[in-house]
Amino acid sequence: MSKQLAPDYVRAIAPYQAGKPIAEVAREFGLDEASIVKLASNENPLGMPESAKLAMQQAVAELGRYPDANGFELKAAISAKYDVPQSWITLGNGSNDILEIAAHAFVQPGQSVVYAQYAFLVYALATQAVGARAIEVPAKDFGHDLAAMAGAIAADTRLVYLANPNNPTGTFVPADELEAFLKSVPSDVVVVLDEAYNEYLATEHQYESTSWVRQFPNLVVSRTMSKAYGLAGLRVGFAIAQPEVTDLMNRIRQPFNVNSLAQAAAIAALNDKAFLQKSAEVNSAGYRQLTEAFDELGLRYVPSFGNFVLVKVGEDDGAGARVNLALLKKGIIVRPVGNYGLPQWLRISIGLPQENAAFIAALKTVLA
Amino acid sequence: MSKQLAPDYVRAIAPYQAGKPIAEVAREFGLDEASIVKLASNENPLGMPESAKLAMQQAVAELGRYPDANGFELKAAISAKYDVPQSWITLGNGSNDILEIAAHAFVQPGQSVVYAQYAFLVYALATQAVGARAIEVPAKDFGHDLAAMAGAIAADTRLVYLANPNNPTGTFVPADELEAFLKSVPSDVVVVLDEAYNEYLATEHQYESTSWVRQFPNLVVSRTMSKAYGLAGLRVGFAIAQPEVTDLMNRIRQPFNVNSLAQAAAIAALNDKAFLQKSAEVNSAGYRQLTEAFDELGLRYVPSFGNFVLVKVGEDDGAGARVNLALLKKGIIVRPVGNYGLPQWLRISIGLPQENAAFIAALKTVLA
Repeated sequence: MSKQLAPDYVRAIAPYQAGKPIAEVAREFGLDEASIVKLASNENPLGMPESAKLAMQQAVAELGRYPDANGFELKAAISAKYDVPQSWITLGNGSNDILEIAAHAFVQPGQSVVYAQYAFLVYALATQAVGARAIEVPAKDFGHDLAAMAGAIAADTRLVYLANPNNPTGTFVPADELEAFLKSVPSDVVVVLDEAYNEYLATEHQYESTSWVRQFPNLVVSRTMSKAYGLAGLRVGFAIAQPEVTDLMNRIRQPFNVNSLAQAAAIAALNDKAFLQKSAEVNSAGYRQLTEAFDELGLRYVPSFGNFVLVKVGEDDGAGARVNLALLKKGIIVRPVGNYGLPQWLRISIGLPQENAAFIAALKTVLA
Repeated sequence: MSKQLAPDYVRAIAPYQAGKPIAEVAREFGLDEASIVKLASNENPLGMPESAKLAMQQAVAELGRYPDANGFELKAAISAKYDVPQSWITLGNGSNDILEIAAHAFVQPGQSVVYAQYAFLVYALATQAVGARAIEVPAKDFGHDLAAMAGAIAADTRLVYLANPNNPTGTFVPADELEAFLKSVPSDVVVVLDEAYNEYLATEHQYESTSWVRQFPNLVVSRTMSKAYGLAGLRVGFAIAQPEVTDLMNRIRQPFNVNSLAQAAAIAALNDKAFLQKSAEVNSAGYRQLTEAFDELGLRYVPSFGNFVLVKVGEDDGAGARVNLALLKKGIIVRPVGNYGLPQWLRISIGLPQENAAFIAALKTVLA
């Protein structure tokens, strides 16, 4: 077709590259699915909690019905857990949806969005999708340089994305620095604080971001149930913000964005403290297992506060892709991060002990 | 907050009003959930097919994983059923997602979108959400006036939404008229042909819209699995279009928009011909049951090609809301359509025989 169907900014988008699914790797490399270890998408290696499976079974009878567009029961559970009114909650089809809703609700073509180098790629994609200008602020030690980010906010900036901990680097900004940053942002610029990995923080690093929502009317705290809660396949995320911002986001939200089973499972998972505790323990142990192996192999890695580790697997810019392909052939799926400007690195999601061990063994062979 | 956080066009959106969920009506009116009949959202009264339930059970084990972002298996099933390559398919979180993806992919603020009066409200919402100008073309006999719609396409029109059958009026445009319309649309204007109710068409009205996709590179055929396939609660829709248009839509699509259970269930449902057949039969019988009652009561209705009937319940503009409230108090949920500019009418989804009977009995009491 000769004529142009879509705006330039849409034509320029390079879609998100997800972690390779196990079935796809099995097809491509002629491997048995059962032999494949996937440490590529920061999923919970424990799978979903039994409590959520049970809750889901009870919801199956009603699947011919549309989901509750207002998510009454799920919002009630979030409201109780985080001590915020239901009118402060926006439900998302995963937190990916929250991140995109924020862009569509607050940013027009030609305006600007601020985020950090090495931050989650969806910030860039959501910015492109609304035809906005990206202001990418150089990272400091692989993490967010908050002073530089505050300084980068322009007159036409409508939105700041900030990940804590950050993916794919695993870096963390302490609460006091974050709070100072929030104070410095103009009140008409919305800040989306993406806390997808919050539940993995050790006790001494935890902070109450939802209390900041009371203080900052321009703050949106974004959470996902795809990581520590183990519900990646069901798609549930949510945002907590004051009513004015929440109301605007809900004007953009698709009415049935969160499916019925996801709503039922999420309620159960939110209240399953034992599962969350177990997930954090498995993650800490796996982090030690992986980083000890990296130390042994003399590989540099970025200390991580999430459920993954960024590790440098070579000095040349082909290293990440090369080691990734060699691992794939051995049935180990990890995440290359060349598209983040980190071509010498790989991001390894923390798995079960035997999955981590299989990865370490394969990595040793590949690097030998 | 004094400053403006969102563009005017976002602030102007009135969010979609979904059919009232059974649980909400039970809470509001102090009724027993089991006693409530919901004929408000054009859902399949048979619920979801058993084949889809079975397929879902097998997918539960993997819910800790992200869904396949490319939907390989589901696209393979759609590809086989409709005889189109996988590269012609876009998956949606319900067809609502398809409708919104099209607006975001093809329309910029200030450009225009054409659709008919009394057409599905999401066309107006998706148009508003991208800051575009709506060109609403007056309906003819409650249906699409295709000649007027073709004439309404302006120099800045990027998108036309067209529903066949149309919701909430149930009207239908025959294949030859549709094809003539498609031929008249400029090739750089995308036409979304929304066929959410296609599976309810009698044999003599059926047509092969997917064959038009080969002929018209600017045509997007949108389908849902929320109606005849009985999967409303799971959220699956899809679009079929040529690769250039499909590629642009997939740049806007959220990578994990269709959850894992929805993908598994949809594959089973797509191939469950017996369920589809049964759904169509239940619908035909229910249509006769409802319209005979309307005839008996002397109520005007629009002959419907979908799984619902638009019926006039009074001559004054308070009639729809008044009768709706009276029905709600009796535990019958139908859909008021005052927000469609049809305040004297109600839209009744076709239910099981006993559900239709309960509605008819309640309606007789209310109107008496």
